[in-house]
Amino acid sequence: MIILGVDSSSAAGSAAVSRDGELLYEAFANEGLTHSQTLLVRCDEALRAGGVRPSDVDVFAVTSGPGSFTGLRIGMGLVKGMAFATGAKCAGVSTFLALAEPLRHSGRDILTVLDARQKRAYCSAYRSLDGELYKVMDECVLNFSELNEAAGRAGLTAPLVVGDISMEAVSYVDEAEYAGDDLRYVHAGHVCKAALSMAEKGLLCSADELRPFYLQLSQAERNRIHSDREEK
Amino acid sequence: MIILGVDSSSAAGSAAVSRDGELLYEAFANEGLTHSQTLLVRCDEALRAGGVRPSDVDVFAVTSGPGSFTGLRIGMGLVKGMAFATGAKCAGVSTFLALAEPLRHSGRDILTVLDARQKRAYCSAYRSLDGELYKVMDECVLNFSELNEAAGRAGLTAPLVVGDISMEAVSYVDEAEYAGDDLRYVHAGHVCKAALSMAEKGLLCSADELRPFYLQLSQAERNRIHSDREEK
Repeated sequence: MIILGVDSSSAAGSAAVSRDGELLYEAFANEGLTHSQTLLVRCDEALRAGGVRPSDVDVFAVTSGPGSFTGLRIGMGLVKGMAFATGAKCAGVSTFLALAEPLRHSGRDILTVLDARQKRAYCSAYRSLDGELYKVMDECVLNFSELNEAAGRAGLTAPLVVGDISMEAVSYVDEAEYAGDDLRYVHAGHVCKAALSMAEKGLLCSADELRPFYLQLSQAERNRIHSDREEK
Repeated sequence: MIILGVDSSSAAGSAAVSRDGELLYEAFANEGLTHSQTLLVRCDEALRAGGVRPSDVDVFAVTSGPGSFTGLRIGMGLVKGMAFATGAKCAGVSTFLALAEPLRHSGRDILTVLDARQKRAYCSAYRSLDGELYKVMDECVLNFSELNEAAGRAGLTAPLVVGDISMEAVSYVDEAEYAGDDLRYVHAGHVCKAALSMAEKGLLCSADELRPFYLQLSQAERNRIHSDREEK
């Protein structure tokens, strides 16, 4: 099974190709350019370097959120377009799961945190047990000051913290441990891995069914609701 | 400080660019093509995607061994050439150190193993302590059956095993733990990281001084010695 994995959920962008679980190619960029300029270039690089044509791809996988509103839309649009054109299946991979994926065999609790601005975190948690990742905290938005209590409620023990704000968030949670620079951003190879697990569990969808996963309304939507109310 | 990191020590090839310790771009390929076909393409991708010209690079870093004889020569030749052309400094990064680098903050013992063919391993070990990596086993070539004793002599406790034969080697060492698919191959971002540490410690060299590090003679050299003896 050939999988093209894409991530543009945060400032970094990444694309990768795997065949039967083996990573053939991965490009990761955090060079400050916008995804609209670079993400298709990354996909093209990954396919060419992997010796794979778009029509060879069995599954187009993308981080479906949470993350940057615009970033998610760019990645999702690209993946929907490619899958629609070739008729292949899609996998919408939780950004949290893609971040936890490299720690699948760690045997640890994993706290996943993504920047929700204004000292708030998009947040979830997993437990690694016998090579499986079990979600132990429902996705939510929390103030940094609420992280420790939430980790306690989820029963986390000395969690490894991953995600783009892991370095800031780690100091708010008792006994938490920074999982390292590599695990601040999604690498698309892990999107491929998570998508393979999803394929095995029958969790793929069509291009049409692929949906972004947001934990809150965008600023534009909040503005509209606010102005609708003012008009009434 | 801008660093271009390159690895071609094993079947996989990788190039990355970092600026002041932040990874700007990393390409990793394990697509079965030879390094002579692809490594310069990877370097070109990394420089372009990072928005960096060869003349902007402060340090050209490369895994200097152990590893595949031909692979090491290709990476080293390329890096020597670029550094010679621009006058920049070089870093020859131990392949073992580049493999251990992502576990710098793990607080664990790390056994690094690379394929030396015929059920033998190029072998070293590190201890992660307070964000530093300390070498606790001198580089050597061992039969798989000798790994456990060597790990014991080095005082390793429940080591994480990394490197291209980590999956095979782990079963030979008591209490050893497979560190995961991501840590089987060098990713060039870790070559950049190790090179930054080396720069801080004054361990850079010139293009001319850069040398590959071999743990045994190549087959060609062994053949020559053998035939020299026969002639006498």
